[in-house]
Amino acid sequence: MTYLFNNPTKFADELIEGYVAAHRNQLRLVEGGVIRSHKAKPGQVVLVIGGGSGHYPAFGGFVGQGLAHGAALGNVFAAPSAQQICNVAQAVDAGGGILFCYGNYAGDVLNFNQAQERLRAMGIDVRTVVITDDIASATLIEKNKRRGIAGTLPVFKAAAVAADTEKSLDEVFRIATDANDRVRTLGVAFSGCTLPGANKPLFEVATGMMEVGMGIHGEPGLYRINAPTADGLAEMLVNKLLAEIPSAILNPDAARIGVILNGLGTVKYEELFVVYRQVDRLLFERGLTIVQPVVGELITSFDMAGLSLTLFWINDELEQTWIAAADTPAFYRSNIAYSNIGTLEASSYRNKRSLETGSPNSQSAAAIVFLALKAASKVINEMSEELGRLDAIAGDGDHGIGMQRGITAAVAAAKEARVARTGVGTLLKAAGDAWSDRAGGTSGALWGIILHNLGDALGDKITPDASAVAVGIASALRDVINRGKAQLGDKTLVDVLHPFSAALTTTASQGLSIVDSWAIATDIANEAAQATKNLRPRIGRARPHAEQSLGTPDPGAISLALIIRAIEKTLNHL
Amino acid sequence: MTYLFNNPTKFADELIEGYVAAHRNQLRLVEGGVIRSHKAKPGQVVLVIGGGSGHYPAFGGFVGQGLAHGAALGNVFAAPSAQQICNVAQAVDAGGGILFCYGNYAGDVLNFNQAQERLRAMGIDVRTVVITDDIASATLIEKNKRRGIAGTLPVFKAAAVAADTEKSLDEVFRIATDANDRVRTLGVAFSGCTLPGANKPLFEVATGMMEVGMGIHGEPGLYRINAPTADGLAEMLVNKLLAEIPSAILNPDAARIGVILNGLGTVKYEELFVVYRQVDRLLFERGLTIVQPVVGELITSFDMAGLSLTLFWINDELEQTWIAAADTPAFYRSNIAYSNIGTLEASSYRNKRSLETGSPNSQSAAAIVFLALKAASKVINEMSEELGRLDAIAGDGDHGIGMQRGITAAVAAAKEARVARTGVGTLLKAAGDAWSDRAGGTSGALWGIILHNLGDALGDKITPDASAVAVGIASALRDVINRGKAQLGDKTLVDVLHPFSAALTTTASQGLSIVDSWAIATDIANEAAQATKNLRPRIGRARPHAEQSLGTPDPGAISLALIIRAIEKTLNHL
Repeated sequence: MTYLFNNPTKFADELIEGYVAAHRNQLRLVEGGVIRSHKAKPGQVVLVIGGGSGHYPAFGGFVGQGLAHGAALGNVFAAPSAQQICNVAQAVDAGGGILFCYGNYAGDVLNFNQAQERLRAMGIDVRTVVITDDIASATLIEKNKRRGIAGTLPVFKAAAVAADTEKSLDEVFRIATDANDRVRTLGVAFSGCTLPGANKPLFEVATGMMEVGMGIHGEPGLYRINAPTADGLAEMLVNKLLAEIPSAILNPDAARIGVILNGLGTVKYEELFVVYRQVDRLLFERGLTIVQPVVGELITSFDMAGLSLTLFWINDELEQTWIAAADTPAFYRSNIAYSNIGTLEASSYRNKRSLETGSPNSQSAAAIVFLALKAASKVINEMSEELGRLDAIAGDGDHGIGMQRGITAAVAAAKEARVARTGVGTLLKAAGDAWSDRAGGTSGALWGIILHNLGDALGDKITPDASAVAVGIASALRDVINRGKAQLGDKTLVDVLHPFSAALTTTASQGLSIVDSWAIATDIANEAAQATKNLRPRIGRARPHAEQSLGTPDPGAISLALIIRAIEKTLNHL
Repeated sequence: MTYLFNNPTKFADELIEGYVAAHRNQLRLVEGGVIRSHKAKPGQVVLVIGGGSGHYPAFGGFVGQGLAHGAALGNVFAAPSAQQICNVAQAVDAGGGILFCYGNYAGDVLNFNQAQERLRAMGIDVRTVVITDDIASATLIEKNKRRGIAGTLPVFKAAAVAADTEKSLDEVFRIATDANDRVRTLGVAFSGCTLPGANKPLFEVATGMMEVGMGIHGEPGLYRINAPTADGLAEMLVNKLLAEIPSAILNPDAARIGVILNGLGTVKYEELFVVYRQVDRLLFERGLTIVQPVVGELITSFDMAGLSLTLFWINDELEQTWIAAADTPAFYRSNIAYSNIGTLEASSYRNKRSLETGSPNSQSAAAIVFLALKAASKVINEMSEELGRLDAIAGDGDHGIGMQRGITAAVAAAKEARVARTGVGTLLKAAGDAWSDRAGGTSGALWGIILHNLGDALGDKITPDASAVAVGIASALRDVINRGKAQLGDKTLVDVLHPFSAALTTTASQGLSIVDSWAIATDIANEAAQATKNLRPRIGRARPHAEQSLGTPDPGAISLALIIRAIEKTLNHL
C-alpha cells in the first residue's frame, strides 16, 4: 500500500524534488535526474546510472562520492527517456568519456541506447555495461538476457572507483564488465506491491507462499513454495547461488566474497538480520571469507515483501573497489576493516552473587520455597498460551512467553541455590535476579522486585513465620508501586498484590500460621484478579488496546494469582 | 506482517546476533546488547542507550562513533533487564561516569533505574536523561510524562558528542537535558504491526484512516481522521509542531532547526520524500533555517505504516552536536555542509532542435498532421482509463497515463512547430522528441521512434504521397523491432504496426491515395489490435501477469490502433 502522495501522476517528480531537498549538501537536481554536487575532475570518466522510480535507494540514492556521478530517473517503474539520460550525462561529462551502467530491462536498454547514439553523435565517448545478475531470469548460457537486481551495487562501485581513480574508459568498461561477470543474485517474494493511487496490488503472492525468483516489477519467477523459516530461506539461497559459481573462480572453497542481503520493501531490517545470521554461518562453514557485507534496502519494489541474496566473487582488483569508501545519501562505507574470521562471542560482566550457606532452619524453608517455585512454574507453563491470549487483548501478547522465560530461569537459579545449601532469603533473591534478567520488560523487573523483597524479609537464618512473610509481601508491594509507578486501579498486578498483602498482614496479626494465613489471602487474591476485568488501564501506559480490555482481566494480575494459588497448594501438601 | 523468523521466542536474540555478524568491523556483542568495537578514552563519560527490540535502527543501530557507546537490547517491545543494562554499562565504562539515555516508557524507566542503583552501589557515577519528545502523549505541563520517539536521535547525538569531547558527566547531563527540552515530535499511523509468529496485527487502524499521535507500540493517539494527501499531512505536522515552540527560543521566525522525518516501518522512502518536499517548503516559508535534515527510518515499529516529524530547536552548542560526524551501522553523517537557503533549480542541457521553415507544400502537410495529432490526443485522453485498465491486467497499469503524457507533449511541440512554419518532417520529429522525453519508458521511446522515422520519410519539402507514408511506416517498423527487440507475436504494438505497414505498402504500390490507402490499412490495424487478445507476452519481458493477459488485447497495440483510426477520421474530414 502506498499511503502518501498528492497527484499520483506527479509522484516521481515530487519524490525526486523532496529527495534533493533533503540532500542539498550532496546533490543537484537536473532535468531528468540528479547529479553529484561536486564536479568530476577534468578529463576523467564519469558513471551515469538510472532506471525507473519506485526502487529507492536505486537509483537516485547511489549518486555521490564513491558511486555514480549522475542518475537518470524515470517515472514509477518506467525507464527514463533518452533525453533525460542525455541531460544527466551532459551535466556530469568531464571530457573523459561516460560509462552507462544499468539493469537489463527492455525500456532501459532502449532509452540508454538511444541516448548513447545521440551523445556519440555529439562526439562524446560512451560505453555501456548492462547488469545481469539475477540467476532466476535466464539460464547461464543466456546470461546476457538476465535481469539486473541488487548486483547493481558492486558493479556501480567497481565502475565508480575505476572512474574516480582516473582510469581510461576502456579500463572502466573492463572492470565493470568483470564485476558483472562475477556477481550473482537470487530473490524471493512474499507479497506484491501497490503503486501510488492504485487500489489494489500490481501483483500478488498467496498468503503463506513464497515465489522464488520473482522480478522487482513482479516479473514471473521460477516457482512458488510454502514460505520457509528464516534459516530455511538462508540455506536455499546460499545453496542455489553456490550452485553457479562464476567460471573465473579457481578455488571456490577458499574464495573471498562480497555479500548483499537486500530487502525489497516491507521485509524489516530485523528479519534481514535473522536471515543474515544463518547466511553468515553457512558461508563461513563453506570456508568462504566474507568481505564487507551489506544488509539493508538497496533496490526495492515499493512495498513488496521479499529479499534477495547477492554473492560477489571478488579478485584483488575488485576487492579494492568493493571495500572502497563511499558517501551517498543511501550508501555509506567507511574504511574500517571487516572480517568474518572467528565466531561471535558475547562478553559478560555479570557479578555473580556468592551463594553462602544458610542456617539449617532457613535451608528447610528454602526447600519449601523451591517446591513452591517449581509448582508455580508448572502452572505458568500450562497457562502460558491463555496468558498470551489475555495479553493480546490489551498489550502485545507476550506476557505468557515472558512469564515462562522468567520463572524457568528462576527455578534454575533456585536449584543452584539449593545445591549450595543457601538460606531461603538468598534463594529467593537469586531466583528474582534470574527472573528479571531473563524475562526483561516490566513484568520481569516487578517479579525480581517481589522475590527480592520477600528474600530480604525472610533472610538466611530464622524459620520464617506468617508475620515475616506478611512483612516481605508488604515491602514488595511498596517497592513495586514506587518503582513501577502503577497505582491501585490501574489494571496491573498491583490490584492483586495490594489486597493480598493486606490479607496476609491482617491474618498474621491474628496469629494464624503461614499455611492458614496464605490460604485466606489466596482466595482474596484470586477474586481481585478476576475483578480486574472491570478496570481500564491508565492512559499513557504502553497499552495498544486500553479500551478493548474492559471485560478482560489483566494478565499480570492473573499470573500473580495463579502463582499464589500454586504456592498455597504446595503448602497444603507438605 | 513478519515473514521471516525461526522460533518467535528467539527472534530478538537471533536478530542481534545477525546484526553484529553484519557489522563485525564496528560492533561487539556482549550479554544484554551491543557495544562499540573500539574502547572509549580512559576517564571519559560513556553513553548507554537501550530499549525493546522491533524498533530498528533504534537502538542497536545507533552504537558507534559519534553516537552511543553501548545499547542494552530487550526482547520484542520489552525493556532490557537491569542485569542486561548493567552488563552493557560495565562493558563500556571508561571510568568517567555513565549517562543513561532512553525513551520514557514504564518498563525502561523501571529497569534502567534499577541498573543505575546497582552501578552506583559499585561506585560508578551514573546519571539519566529520559527522552520525552512526543507532543501527543501528554500536555506541555506534564512534559516529563511524554513518551520518547524519534527525538531520541538529537538527544543521543548531543550526549555522545559531549561525552567524546571529554566533557564532565555534569556537562554531558546538562547538554543532553537541554537537547531533550528543545525537541518536539508528532507521529501518525495508517496501520498497525504484526509481531513475529503472530497471526494478526497487534493493533490496527481502519483502512483509509490515519491516527494522529499513536505510539510506537500502538499506544492510543489523539484522534483518527481520514488519511490526508502527502502535502496535507506535511502541513498538519508542521502546524501542530510550530504551535508548541520551546520556551528557550527567542525568535521562532528566524531560528535554526534540525528536522527528522522518520518512517515507522512500511511507509516507503519514496513517500517520505514526497512529504519532505512540502515540509521543506513550509519551514522555508516560515523563515526557519533547516540544518542537516534526516529523512529515513530511525525508530520503527516493525511493519507499522506511519511516520513522525521532529523539529529540534538548536542553539550554537546543540548545532555543533547535531551536525557532528557520526558513523554507526544505521546512521552516518559526514561533515559536508547543508543549507536550505535558496530554492531548487534544475539545470537543463537540452539541445533544442532549431525549427527551420519548410516548403509551402510541406507546411500544408504539417497542418494536416497537426490536426491528426490533436484528434489522436483527444482519443487517447478519452480512452486513457480504459488503456490503464487493460495494462493493469498484464503490466503495471500506467499505459494510459504514459500515452496521455506523451501525446500531450507531442501536440504542444507540434504547435510550436506550426508557429515556426516548419515542414511536416520537422514537425513530426519535434513531436516525437517531446513524446519520448515526456513519457519515458518503453512506449514513449517507441512512439518517438515511429514519429521520427515518419518525419524523416516525409521531409520538409515534398507534398507527401501514400508511398512516402508507407516508406516512413515501414522504416518505423524496422527501427521499432531493432531497438525494442520485440518480435511479431510478442503481444506488443509490433503486432499492429507490422500488418498496418504491410497494408500501406501494398495499397500504395497499387497507386491508391493516402486517404484510401490509410483507410484500408486502418481496418487491418484495428483487427490486428483486437487479435492480440489471443497472444501471450514473451517470457522475460517486464510483465507481472503474463499468463493472466490471455483474452485481453495488448494496451500498446490498442492505443496504436486508436491513433491510426483517429488519423483516418481526420483525413476523411478534410
